[in-house]
Amino acid sequence: MKTYIECVPCIINQAIHLSRDLTDDHKKQESFLREVLKNLTEVSYDHSPPHIAAHVYRLIRQTLNNPDPYKKVKTEYNQIAKRLYPSLKKKVKSSKNRFRTAVKLSIAGNVIDFGSSQNFQLDRTIKQVLNKNLAIDDVNRLKNEIKKTSNILYLGDNAGETFFDRILIEELPKKEIYYGVRGTPVINDATEKDARYARLDKIAQIISNGSDAPGTILDECSREFRKIFNKADLIIAKGQGNYETLNEVKDKNIFFLFMVKCPVIACDAKCRVGDNVVWKLEF
Amino acid sequence: MKTYIECVPCIINQAIHLSRDLTDDHKKQESFLREVLKNLTEVSYDHSPPHIAAHVYRLIRQTLNNPDPYKKVKTEYNQIAKRLYPSLKKKVKSSKNRFRTAVKLSIAGNVIDFGSSQNFQLDRTIKQVLNKNLAIDDVNRLKNEIKKTSNILYLGDNAGETFFDRILIEELPKKEIYYGVRGTPVINDATEKDARYARLDKIAQIISNGSDAPGTILDECSREFRKIFNKADLIIAKGQGNYETLNEVKDKNIFFLFMVKCPVIACDAKCRVGDNVVWKLEF
Repeated sequence: MKTYIECVPCIINQAIHLSRDLTDDHKKQESFLREVLKNLTEVSYDHSPPHIAAHVYRLIRQTLNNPDPYKKVKTEYNQIAKRLYPSLKKKVKSSKNRFRTAVKLSIAGNVIDFGSSQNFQLDRTIKQVLNKNLAIDDVNRLKNEIKKTSNILYLGDNAGETFFDRILIEELPKKEIYYGVRGTPVINDATEKDARYARLDKIAQIISNGSDAPGTILDECSREFRKIFNKADLIIAKGQGNYETLNEVKDKNIFFLFMVKCPVIACDAKCRVGDNVVWKLEF
Repeated sequence: MKTYIECVPCIINQAIHLSRDLTDDHKKQESFLREVLKNLTEVSYDHSPPHIAAHVYRLIRQTLNNPDPYKKVKTEYNQIAKRLYPSLKKKVKSSKNRFRTAVKLSIAGNVIDFGSSQNFQLDRTIKQVLNKNLAIDDVNRLKNEIKKTSNILYLGDNAGETFFDRILIEELPKKEIYYGVRGTPVINDATEKDARYARLDKIAQIISNGSDAPGTILDECSREFRKIFNKADLIIAKGQGNYETLNEVKDKNIFFLFMVKCPVIACDAKCRVGDNVVWKLEF
């Protein structure tokens, strides 16, 4: 999808929060902001928001000389999610519809997103997502389609959310399963290291997309990743970033699983901020 | 005060909302946004937020060829406030502390602000402000200082809020009172026309500041206005815009009356967004 003008102040807010976190030097913060503004003046909004955000995060890594600004929160949420994992597993085991519960939990994990918000409550979100209907509910369709596939590409989103993805992947029938991650650190998105920490390598083949965008910009992904993407019978894409970068791909069987985090996506999905969706687009 | 980096996305959001309201032409909206971003890349943040916002609103008037984009909502809220006026007057008359009630009502009217928010509920706000303690409470001091003065300059903020200001001005002892307004339309700020609509000319001398900024940038105000400002024994300045542009003026007796509408001002005033203040700064 293209970038809406409303995305622009949102990207700027992300940049400001991060620069405040990374340095106390007001001059550095200001000069970084000016760089971001200059970039946003010039860039084409025909690109998706993750494309534009990728550039901003590249700028921040360079300007503030920090290759992985969210390292600390990624470690923190990897550990929190690891501790939660046994209780999540119990929820699935004791539920009447294991698959649906696992799907919902995987979406609940999508709240661990330091791009869109610094304020979330994981425990509360898990309860809310489990107790609420999905705003777009293609869960049964997903379940049926999975049966027909011989291989699945599961595109992860955030570190920590990886454990919630593990919950869902463990409910899938034994197939050739790939778990896609970002090529290098960007925001708190999961990289190969985070996927391994969640032991996803035991139940899937972890594949880096080779890109530093907080989404899946196919043109910027590695040839190896694109090969797996192209041959996948079914793709489960987690998070808004993957939706924003893949929602115009018409020739693949993609199910988008995410929490709606901003008014632009809410408008696009005809639902509300805070809603949860399992969405197979129709073209 | 200077502009904080957090003010930048807020100003951009204002510009986006307004351009969405004024035109359906996406190309115009986008090119206007780029102009705003360019301006924000170049301008010095040593200026106050109203200084920067003034430029953005100048841009919008030019780009969208509309000298008074908020004319409709100003008319609407002038009429709403006019209808409310008798009930506000009753509240003052029946209260134990008329002056304090009038001060609080004048602050409640400060919610009529299309710069910081498009979503406010006037009736609910009036109740809330009346029932809540002021976060900074220099009301008694204001009352005492008023007794000692021979002339007062009351700086208005928004159209419609003018009726709430009238409520307070009618509680002041008979003095030489000036009511300051913006020189030309900017956001939904009150101009001479709005002040006259609230019949403020019957109880005060209306004085235009000659400027198009949503605040009081003395360097940009008319000589006539500055003369009255300089000779004023006491100044009552309504709203964040007047605070942001006058909070460094040390040699005048200024009481700032406003509703705290953003985190930057909340931090500055050491209170919370939604709090209300009557604040005489100490230097």
